[in-house]
Amino acid sequence: MSGRILVPWKSVRDDLGDLGAGLTVEVFGGDEPGPDDLGDVVFFTVPYDQPHGLEPVKRLTGVKVVQALTAGYDNLLPLFADDVTLCNARGLHDAGTAEHALALILAAQRELPRWTRAQDQGRWEHTHTRSLADSRVMIVGYGSIGAALDQRLRACDAETIRVARSARPGEHVHAVAELDSLLPETDIVVLVTPLTEDTRGLLNTRRLALLPDDALVVNVGRGPVLDTEAIGAEAGKGRLRAALDVTDPEPLPEGHPLWTCPGVLVTPHVAGGAADFYPKAAAFTAAQVRAFAAGEPLRNVVR
Amino acid sequence: MSGRILVPWKSVRDDLGDLGAGLTVEVFGGDEPGPDDLGDVVFFTVPYDQPHGLEPVKRLTGVKVVQALTAGYDNLLPLFADDVTLCNARGLHDAGTAEHALALILAAQRELPRWTRAQDQGRWEHTHTRSLADSRVMIVGYGSIGAALDQRLRACDAETIRVARSARPGEHVHAVAELDSLLPETDIVVLVTPLTEDTRGLLNTRRLALLPDDALVVNVGRGPVLDTEAIGAEAGKGRLRAALDVTDPEPLPEGHPLWTCPGVLVTPHVAGGAADFYPKAAAFTAAQVRAFAAGEPLRNVVR
Repeated sequence: MSGRILVPWKSVRDDLGDLGAGLTVEVFGGDEPGPDDLGDVVFFTVPYDQPHGLEPVKRLTGVKVVQALTAGYDNLLPLFADDVTLCNARGLHDAGTAEHALALILAAQRELPRWTRAQDQGRWEHTHTRSLADSRVMIVGYGSIGAALDQRLRACDAETIRVARSARPGEHVHAVAELDSLLPETDIVVLVTPLTEDTRGLLNTRRLALLPDDALVVNVGRGPVLDTEAIGAEAGKGRLRAALDVTDPEPLPEGHPLWTCPGVLVTPHVAGGAADFYPKAAAFTAAQVRAFAAGEPLRNVVR
Repeated sequence: MSGRILVPWKSVRDDLGDLGAGLTVEVFGGDEPGPDDLGDVVFFTVPYDQPHGLEPVKRLTGVKVVQALTAGYDNLLPLFADDVTLCNARGLHDAGTAEHALALILAAQRELPRWTRAQDQGRWEHTHTRSLADSRVMIVGYGSIGAALDQRLRACDAETIRVARSARPGEHVHAVAELDSLLPETDIVVLVTPLTEDTRGLLNTRRLALLPDDALVVNVGRGPVLDTEAIGAEAGKGRLRAALDVTDPEPLPEGHPLWTCPGVLVTPHVAGGAADFYPKAAAFTAAQVRAFAAGEPLRNVVR
């Protein structure tokens, strides 16, 4: 095996040093288009959240392994031939995404947007708020991010209700088919699910109506899992609240009614990629390259 | 034992029902001044955070037990004779206060004020932020609230450094005398300590200078434990950040420079008294009254 290996950060290249065996490591950061000649690249790391990260794809004619730094990889499947090994970043975003979901929940319960606005007006406005402690929180899409969120919520004295596609009684996970019977007992619903034909529009007008008054809907999964008009209608009349890191449409366009809907907090898809991700991603990428160079099995192979 | 018992909520009175033995339970909510004739009151619960909560004190000439619903009770000591039993609310505010401290930390690390301001301008402004995960957080004042915060922080993959007046090696608690050597290794400092002559001005100009660049200072204890001018100077030049639920002076007056200091988030002393407190406080008050009526030992006796 010989050829070039592209990694997104100099720190990874320096960490790897000389791999020998005709393999050379180069940096492609994705902030600018890649070099012209990429026919001898055998291992390509897709730079994370960069404007030109996928620009070189057509010139990667000899690539053997594509390493994504996102958990999702649907967008990559059609870009590479079936015999190219595709690895994702499962696990690397768990802490950051769960942490942002927790931040959204606490912001909504403890009214942080209200205090920011009061601060901007120089107003000391003492009052009492909701709490997360002793709330019942449903996690819809109980995978590795859901488990990371569950751990945080239980440490905050919240009760959690776990929901996934199929029931897993050993982990106290309910099947999504039970959703309708669980919603009336839920104070806070967190959507962490990927977008599939099963999850599109999962929280629609009918299901939102099953939630008790003043419940909070949080979305850190994919925008279309929540019906935008339906949540806007419920929040607009003050019956439900929402804290959304993903929206439908996304980005939320200027003048969209969600921006100004009462009881709705919007963050611009920033759950993943916080500071803790980069050291983990660098170490993981280096380990994958080392395994590749040594002919050992790769982790997180998704195709 | 006969006489009247004052509790702050009707739910507690209803829960207690008929105590027999000449004891009657009445509600005093503290939102208005109390009745004139209180000479036969034997058990008085100080209503929580109400404008007239302490108004009846001078007329409580026969009181045997005073139950505070705050953790602090310094303000009550001079109001009642030494033979009056005084109980506090130790434990009832742990979850709510720890939760608000966590909310402040996450708000600062994940830039929630920025997203609120962007939302108010209808701007989708995607970028990456700091994280709490993999940060080193020092808890100064490691008591029951500190322990509740520690549990939440560790669930968020943060490392904690525990500091109290005296070292408790079995609990990995450092003595405050070691503070200067610990500050340079700290990403986030949380002050949870009461105000004493030892803690007044604890985080002063000299100690703040020991923190690394970009460190976050959180205060949910008492305002004067942190030197206001010193943190204002560090935050003003962009070297440190702050998230403060208590301030010195408090309330923060109109036009005070902290309101507009860059990198400073202010909430108006709302850490305690969130929704989870009230059911706990009601159950605790009822249990104390029952113990009193039965002649059994009271909990949380502080004098």
